[in-house]
Amino acid sequence: MKKLYHFSLSPFCRKIRLILGEKKIDVELIEEKFWEKRVQFIKINHAGEVPVYVENLLTISDSNAIFEYLEEKYNDPPLLPDNLELRAECRRLSNWFDFKFHKEVTERVLYERVYKKVMKRGYPKSEIIKSGLKNLKFHLNYLNWLLEKRKWIACDFLTISDFTVASHLSSLDYISDVNWQEFSYVKDWYSKIKSRPTFRPILSDLLAGFNPPEHYNDLDF
Amino acid sequence: MKKLYHFSLSPFCRKIRLILGEKKIDVELIEEKFWEKRVQFIKINHAGEVPVYVENLLTISDSNAIFEYLEEKYNDPPLLPDNLELRAECRRLSNWFDFKFHKEVTERVLYERVYKKVMKRGYPKSEIIKSGLKNLKFHLNYLNWLLEKRKWIACDFLTISDFTVASHLSSLDYISDVNWQEFSYVKDWYSKIKSRPTFRPILSDLLAGFNPPEHYNDLDF
Repeated sequence: MKKLYHFSLSPFCRKIRLILGEKKIDVELIEEKFWEKRVQFIKINHAGEVPVYVENLLTISDSNAIFEYLEEKYNDPPLLPDNLELRAECRRLSNWFDFKFHKEVTERVLYERVYKKVMKRGYPKSEIIKSGLKNLKFHLNYLNWLLEKRKWIACDFLTISDFTVASHLSSLDYISDVNWQEFSYVKDWYSKIKSRPTFRPILSDLLAGFNPPEHYNDLDF
Repeated sequence: MKKLYHFSLSPFCRKIRLILGEKKIDVELIEEKFWEKRVQFIKINHAGEVPVYVENLLTISDSNAIFEYLEEKYNDPPLLPDNLELRAECRRLSNWFDFKFHKEVTERVLYERVYKKVMKRGYPKSEIIKSGLKNLKFHLNYLNWLLEKRKWIACDFLTISDFTVASHLSSLDYISDVNWQEFSYVKDWYSKIKSRPTFRPILSDLLAGFNPPEHYNDLDF
């Protein structure tokens, strides 16, 4: 039996759910309030973070380690190209979003607005959110520039980079923070990836106390 | 011709230098003051960060993308095991240090103490450094616990996890922030990895304005 411990609004968990969906791997989803540091969960993952993927006796934490494992074990469909240079480009862009974008945008916007309330850790600071939204523009500009030249984010076919970026942006879109109209290539790309069947269950998850905007679940946004 | 743009005290750059050394790949090292955002450098890497690896017409940024590329192209010696489960464990621990440890310790200690001065970005805040040093203890305890059971960090042979962790700890050791005596298994492990020939050039790099402690370069510390 396969399981995934996750939190619905975490971009890292969304990414793994998309990968599992694309590779048609069935898992039992377990929503984990990781900030409550449940003893049984800490035993499974000493880092206390989600996602955690369990497959028989194997437990893997860290979304990147989980992805590489799934890619090596369940290679149909592949989410990395064969070409070594393109693989590097895919990983570069995935890591850009998981590391740089996460630090400069996700932590400043999503975590301030939502995580603080959910975890009962004080009030959002408007100057932090403001700086995050300013950074978001820089990243969207870069994406728009990439997507003007490429069909998908890393190359001309769908790869892990697309799922990583879509995970981060969809979490921000839940709280209305992406101005799609200003970035037409990004909007077209998001419209394509949003229409994939694997995206539907993610977009129908709701977080108590936070309602997504009307366009969030809409394919024509 | 192969090149590596790097900054001597960056753990991510140290990791790539160790990997290049282990795999016997010769590169021209170019020290990059990445915070100065040199126009020619931003053209090479839009993210403006180090390390950046250049091989003929290929340019890769992000230490994880560079590592996976080098591992796929230059597999002798391999720094990931063949076994899929052990590969996952190696990546989990590498990412733990690059992501969690970096955020909870490196940014709070090394960046406050050294980067702020070097980049002329204000004065170190003692409460940030203090919290980083407290977090360091948690991580060293975890490492000590792992190394009590394993010969190397991820399993019984030397892998990428060892080079990642050693890179982070060696950068902190430059500013005397690791209390080796308290964590005997970590100390024994560091002594083994520090004695590798690939570690020597890294430990002889000096940063103007900061002198490492006497034990830093010493195999018997």
